[in-house]
Amino acid sequence: MNGTISEEERNALYRVVYSRRDVRGEFLPDSIDDKVLMRILTAAHHAPSVGFMQPWDFIVVRNPAVKQQIKDGFERAHNEAAALFEGERNKQYKTLKLEGIVEAPIGICVTCDRKRTGPVVLGRTANPEMDLYSSVCAVQNLWLAARAENIGVGWVSILHHEDTRNILGIPDEIVPIAWLCLGKVSSFHDQPELEQKGWLPRMDIADIIHENSW
Amino acid sequence: MNGTISEEERNALYRVVYSRRDVRGEFLPDSIDDKVLMRILTAAHHAPSVGFMQPWDFIVVRNPAVKQQIKDGFERAHNEAAALFEGERNKQYKTLKLEGIVEAPIGICVTCDRKRTGPVVLGRTANPEMDLYSSVCAVQNLWLAARAENIGVGWVSILHHEDTRNILGIPDEIVPIAWLCLGKVSSFHDQPELEQKGWLPRMDIADIIHENSW
Repeated sequence: MNGTISEEERNALYRVVYSRRDVRGEFLPDSIDDKVLMRILTAAHHAPSVGFMQPWDFIVVRNPAVKQQIKDGFERAHNEAAALFEGERNKQYKTLKLEGIVEAPIGICVTCDRKRTGPVVLGRTANPEMDLYSSVCAVQNLWLAARAENIGVGWVSILHHEDTRNILGIPDEIVPIAWLCLGKVSSFHDQPELEQKGWLPRMDIADIIHENSW
Repeated sequence: MNGTISEEERNALYRVVYSRRDVRGEFLPDSIDDKVLMRILTAAHHAPSVGFMQPWDFIVVRNPAVKQQIKDGFERAHNEAAALFEGERNKQYKTLKLEGIVEAPIGICVTCDRKRTGPVVLGRTANPEMDLYSSVCAVQNLWLAARAENIGVGWVSILHHEDTRNILGIPDEIVPIAWLCLGKVSSFHDQPELEQKGWLPRMDIADIIHENSW
């Protein structure tokens, strides 16, 4: 078959998948080469999208003052969140480093333009959330491409979209999907940090596979 | 650095990203080896998830009668959808093959358990949609892993979740995210089919990158 992926290439894909991490504490200040960044964004732009609508935009933030405003937004949401955890969980939550907004040389806001290509979108008719999901697929492509470039990515979700919208001047009809921190790293953790630190264990895959019905 | 991805491995990742397609018409009846399927599902299970909650389940459907019920659900949603397109667009919509539900040897329903690990989830406090987005990341990992195994995947979104829920016996608290068709293929298209057939063009990436603000 034309376009066959070799066993070596397949193994490379798996190596990237299994070594991808949510990076918070290991960002280096070194800048990312423009060519590398464009390769990462172009991979994101080739994610699947419902009806080929490509609803994503990428706001690339290098300005330290803008990053600091996003960090302030994180602090507000983080303090609200901490109050929701009780007892030991609360103590542990407060010890976790959950973002590298200011340290990472680049922040990227990925968005979804729900009106792109008009009101009726092929494949979105029964499931209106499909355009949002397409932008999430772009995030995952970006994350894996970055890992393949040995660039760390952290998704900061402890942040109110209204703050992101105000700080970046995002129009009302555009939905913020993700704030991503990108940068070179001192190292990648061997395991997800929340697994390593005992927050939650990896589930047994046998428990989440069903045959023919739930 | 420990765990550095080589240039060759990086190129392999990009090759998979750029040759991944939404497959509808090229499925072969050949079965998928169980080991291959488990590799694909295990890659999906190693997607990023908010607070490491791993909210996904995978319902693997090989039963032809169940696939036929899903196909009937597609037909209903497809007829509703066709009525929304006008004029030339309506004619073109009706000529497109948009799914391979019955032909593909395996269907997989990916879901999201919003109550997994309890009501308060690290990272979901400000953005309640983050668990749904985690399951979408699992879909994208699955899709790329399948492509690396030379297995085609098609995401059928023209299908009401209530039908999927009823057919598969999915509990009320679990949210269906995607119905995926998996199978070996006669070929992968060089370009996305909707691009190839002139439904919509690929956007210029320069038009969707912003610097520091929208």
